[in-house]
Amino acid sequence: MNSPTLSLVDLYAPIRRDLVIAQRIFDDELVSELLIVNGLCEHIQSYRGKMLRPALLLLSAQATGEVSSTHHTLAAVVEMVHMATLVHDDVLDEADERRRLPTVCARAGNVTAVLLGDHLISHAFHLCSGLDSQYASRRIGATTNTVCEGELLQNHFRGNDRLGEAEYFDITRRKTGALAAVCCELGASYAGAEESVVQAMYAYGMSAGVAFQIIDDVLDIVGDRRQVGKTLGRDLSLGMLTLPTIHCLSSASPATALALRAAVTGKEPYHPKQLRQWLDEAGSIEYAVSAATSHVNDALRQLDLVPVSDARSSLVAMAEFIVERHY
Amino acid sequence: MNSPTLSLVDLYAPIRRDLVIAQRIFDDELVSELLIVNGLCEHIQSYRGKMLRPALLLLSAQATGEVSSTHHTLAAVVEMVHMATLVHDDVLDEADERRRLPTVCARAGNVTAVLLGDHLISHAFHLCSGLDSQYASRRIGATTNTVCEGELLQNHFRGNDRLGEAEYFDITRRKTGALAAVCCELGASYAGAEESVVQAMYAYGMSAGVAFQIIDDVLDIVGDRRQVGKTLGRDLSLGMLTLPTIHCLSSASPATALALRAAVTGKEPYHPKQLRQWLDEAGSIEYAVSAATSHVNDALRQLDLVPVSDARSSLVAMAEFIVERHY
Repeated sequence: MNSPTLSLVDLYAPIRRDLVIAQRIFDDELVSELLIVNGLCEHIQSYRGKMLRPALLLLSAQATGEVSSTHHTLAAVVEMVHMATLVHDDVLDEADERRRLPTVCARAGNVTAVLLGDHLISHAFHLCSGLDSQYASRRIGATTNTVCEGELLQNHFRGNDRLGEAEYFDITRRKTGALAAVCCELGASYAGAEESVVQAMYAYGMSAGVAFQIIDDVLDIVGDRRQVGKTLGRDLSLGMLTLPTIHCLSSASPATALALRAAVTGKEPYHPKQLRQWLDEAGSIEYAVSAATSHVNDALRQLDLVPVSDARSSLVAMAEFIVERHY
Repeated sequence: MNSPTLSLVDLYAPIRRDLVIAQRIFDDELVSELLIVNGLCEHIQSYRGKMLRPALLLLSAQATGEVSSTHHTLAAVVEMVHMATLVHDDVLDEADERRRLPTVCARAGNVTAVLLGDHLISHAFHLCSGLDSQYASRRIGATTNTVCEGELLQNHFRGNDRLGEAEYFDITRRKTGALAAVCCELGASYAGAEESVVQAMYAYGMSAGVAFQIIDDVLDIVGDRRQVGKTLGRDLSLGMLTLPTIHCLSSASPATALALRAAVTGKEPYHPKQLRQWLDEAGSIEYAVSAATSHVNDALRQLDLVPVSDARSSLVAMAEFIVERHY
């Protein structure tokens, strides 16, 4: 695929109007009677991204039943939750740019970033609690619990060179997989799909989410900085091992492993080009991409239960798209 | 009153067992399957305070009807919301001690404090969404929206010497009043009280909450550091005007006002003892305490609709207690 943005537009075709409605609900929910708050919320605009989670939710609904107004609200809710994690992640990562724009953090200080993230998460729950049934609120609450645990775990392992694959996948399932999974689950569940289909959609979202995170972690090291829109090589500089570096530690020569350990524990500085060389030598990028591909295949298998439709085709293509991103 | 802690124990007598149940629900909600997360949550223990908000909720229920299991859950929810604001406030204030113990922030870094605050707010909503009705979730969500707006407003006015009384009260109603108000409202509402009583209880909580914040702001300047358990004089050093300093700016001599403006805008350093002298000369402490007393009287008037009972007596005494704290 030559232009990822264009491709997503195509994939979103079956739910284009639903996404517009969800976006309007999102915007309406955040309007405040206070001009100052509205001004601050403009910072959030720069976090607008690919609307992947609302798209997953709406496509899952359409592929397994019918999109309703509840889905539109839920699509806005999951995007709000996702944005809250982005804003707070920036405080955590001290990232100075994201999506090629200065972060809330860099522009308005850590304090505003903490408050705006809180503002988003509060409005997400407020919006969700306006639905007729408590079920979605309960599921979203359980999911944000899990996301927080993933973030706490990840932070706990910062600067720790003993983070293994099992811990990495545990963190990734919680931090990224859980929200994608609940999007697909709620989409199917509120479309009236059978329990087996709802579970399959959850599993699709989980596997796709994990694959997405693995590729994100790969792109953090080998991506085109202009396309990724973030500072490169940040994970290691923040003391965080990811699947490629975990593989490299266990497969590289003793000298390389030693240097990599010194880098993750912050004992020795390293150069991003050096890191790339270590990973290339150990075949760690290929290893991580192949793990992502395997998760994508797991995701695709879950769609066996779903009848053929444009929405289903988009779900297939979205999963395949994950490993086709540029790196 | 000689010992504030002992007095609160007395005031809580009508709901002592209910508070124990609420505390158990609070603890159970935060138990994680992850040992690491449980370890981090131990930091939260140090934020345990006077359980004022759960007490307001339970006393309001008992004074206007009967305490139910829903009230126990809601009491845990409001305490969780309150603690989340404390933890994130510490990131914002860079406070290095609270309740005479090092803050989460100082001990585990800003990152963990942001994540633990998120963890608490997520669990608060998760716990609330387990109730049969959506009503409480919706009210709690609306309240946290308001609290966030209060915090955003307050942060916006940092370092600004033109914050006036109107803005101060607007911030205070949102930041502190709203949560206390919704505690009393939900207590009465879920006890089956009439709408007029529910509204009166909301107004009681709002006025009591604002009075509490005014005295908190007074104690920040003139309190006994050991009793307040926080670093003194922080508001001004963080560039935040509060009712006493706002009054002083408009009432003190031009020379004093100039020095105070320089202090709040961070142009000139100041000594806490100097601040105290400025405020004493302008009668600003008395002014603020009298404003708090007036709010307490407003709160007490709201209880006219509530029949005599031990719980009502406690609500009266809790309001009176606000202005009797040591300063």
